[in-house]
Amino acid sequence: MSIKEMIQDHPAVGADYTEELGEAVKHAMYCAAICNSCADACSAEDMDMRRCIRLCLDCSDVCEATYRLASRRTDENRQLIRTMLATCINACEICEAECAKHDNPHCRRCAQMCRECAEDCRKALDKLNEEVHADA
Amino acid sequence: MSIKEMIQDHPAVGADYTEELGEAVKHAMYCAAICNSCADACSAEDMDMRRCIRLCLDCSDVCEATYRLASRRTDENRQLIRTMLATCINACEICEAECAKHDNPHCRRCAQMCRECAEDCRKALDKLNEEVHADA
Amino acid sequence: MSIKEMIQDHPAVGADYTEELGEAVKHAMYCAAICNSCADACSAEDMDMRRCIRLCLDCSDVCEATYRLASRRTDENRQLIRTMLATCINACEICEAECAKHDNPHCRRCAQMCRECAEDCRKALDKLNEEVHADA
Amino acid sequence: MSIKEMIQDHPAVGADYTEELGEAVKHAMYCAAICNSCADACSAEDMDMRRCIRLCLDCSDVCEATYRLASRRTDENRQLIRTMLATCINACEICEAECAKHDNPHCRRCAQMCRECAEDCRKALDKLNEEVHADA
Repeated sequence: MSIKEMIQDHPAVGADYTEELGEAVKHAMYCAAICNSCADACSAEDMDMRRCIRLCLDCSDVCEATYRLASRRTDENRQLIRTMLATCINACEICEAECAKHDNPHCRRCAQMCRECAEDCRKALDKLNEEVHADA
Repeated sequence: MSIKEMIQDHPAVGADYTEELGEAVKHAMYCAAICNSCADACSAEDMDMRRCIRLCLDCSDVCEATYRLASRRTDENRQLIRTMLATCINACEICEAECAKHDNPHCRRCAQMCRECAEDCRKALDKLNEEVHADA
Repeated sequence: MSIKEMIQDHPAVGADYTEELGEAVKHAMYCAAICNSCADACSAEDMDMRRCIRLCLDCSDVCEATYRLASRRTDENRQLIRTMLATCINACEICEAECAKHDNPHCRRCAQMCRECAEDCRKALDKLNEEVHADA
Repeated sequence: MSIKEMIQDHPAVGADYTEELGEAVKHAMYCAAICNSCADACSAEDMDMRRCIRLCLDCSDVCEATYRLASRRTDENRQLIRTMLATCINACEICEAECAKHDNPHCRRCAQMCRECAEDCRKALDKLNEEVHADA
């Protein structure tokens, strides 16, 4: 099952579907789940992980909202998708920087996920910005 | 990136990790995203899809809560996970029955996703119930 | 601004609107927010609050899904609302029992919120069950 | 029960608690619920409300993420809170503009809620920006 294929089944999707936005949706969905899991795993560690728990929970919430609205194709809401992609890049970078400080496997995995998600959101944002310039 | 591997990175996961619960988490995560997308696609269709929109939104919310709590491994909350898996099976069956009535590609895909999610939640629930009997 | 009044603005709400369900929606919305905040506050405490963090996060997720689907009035999904209300009662009772063990102000407040939410969900469930019997 | 009082029960809240951020959290929580309800009510209307459904769902998701992260007080994540408040203002303004075009009671109420939420987020953002300048 693929969220990217699902978006292409939308009755209003045509030439405006971009592979880049599909990738960002998919990875923001994963990142929401991975950060939620990392926050939980951090709270079970013996060292003080409070900052990491907090940043993972924040990043999970932002990724969740990002993928949900970026996967909608009815009418359009591009300005908000662009703003939200930028916010998601911000959230992922902050969370990645913290997780990268910790040597446990879940934080390493979460840092990698955040890095990939930020990268895909950046590509999707670049693509959307190109379209804006092309429209102008 | 895999949410199933992520759960296994949890410091407290041991013999109690079950493959079945991992599958249920993964598919509930996908199903939350697919149902959210199907609700949006339904609202763009020309025929009256109001019932389908509603059931997809409800199913998305239930799947979202299910995967989030079923992926946590700190301490334990098995009774609630069992109750939530049962609720998720209920939500998926109701949504599948409605989506199966419609011939558009997004509803067909959503019906299939709901069927698979319900099946995986049922297997995870059976496994958790076995454990309860084994503990007794 | 009131979510209860909002629900009554729905074009399809008539005699089937129950005060009890409106109260459950309102309190599940608050409880989702309070439990999310309590999980965060618990992670800042110096004692080991890992079990409380986990149960608060689980309860927040369940309350969130509950209020979102119980506030929808298009077509109907009563069977799932009943199942979800029962799950929410379960989540609130488990979270309340844990928070009640801790003497800090946020846990005391959260325990009280969970108690009220469970009570309102129980009243709404009783009312919906009455309707089912009346229909039969 | 008050989410604003709850935040003040956090063990790490001190002089940095601002009334403005508390108001923004409260109204973003309400706005998430009102927009979720408005999307549902719109889907039950006989006229074509697809654009309004979409913008309400997007606004609900953004408000939800906003209130959840803005209510956390462990360690700090101010840069992201500022970015998210700005995104929330954006989402509310877009949703308000659409709901204001429709004459049904739920859209009028939702437009008002979005206006109030945007205003409170703007005040909270101004306050946080002042702090940044004071720190510098």
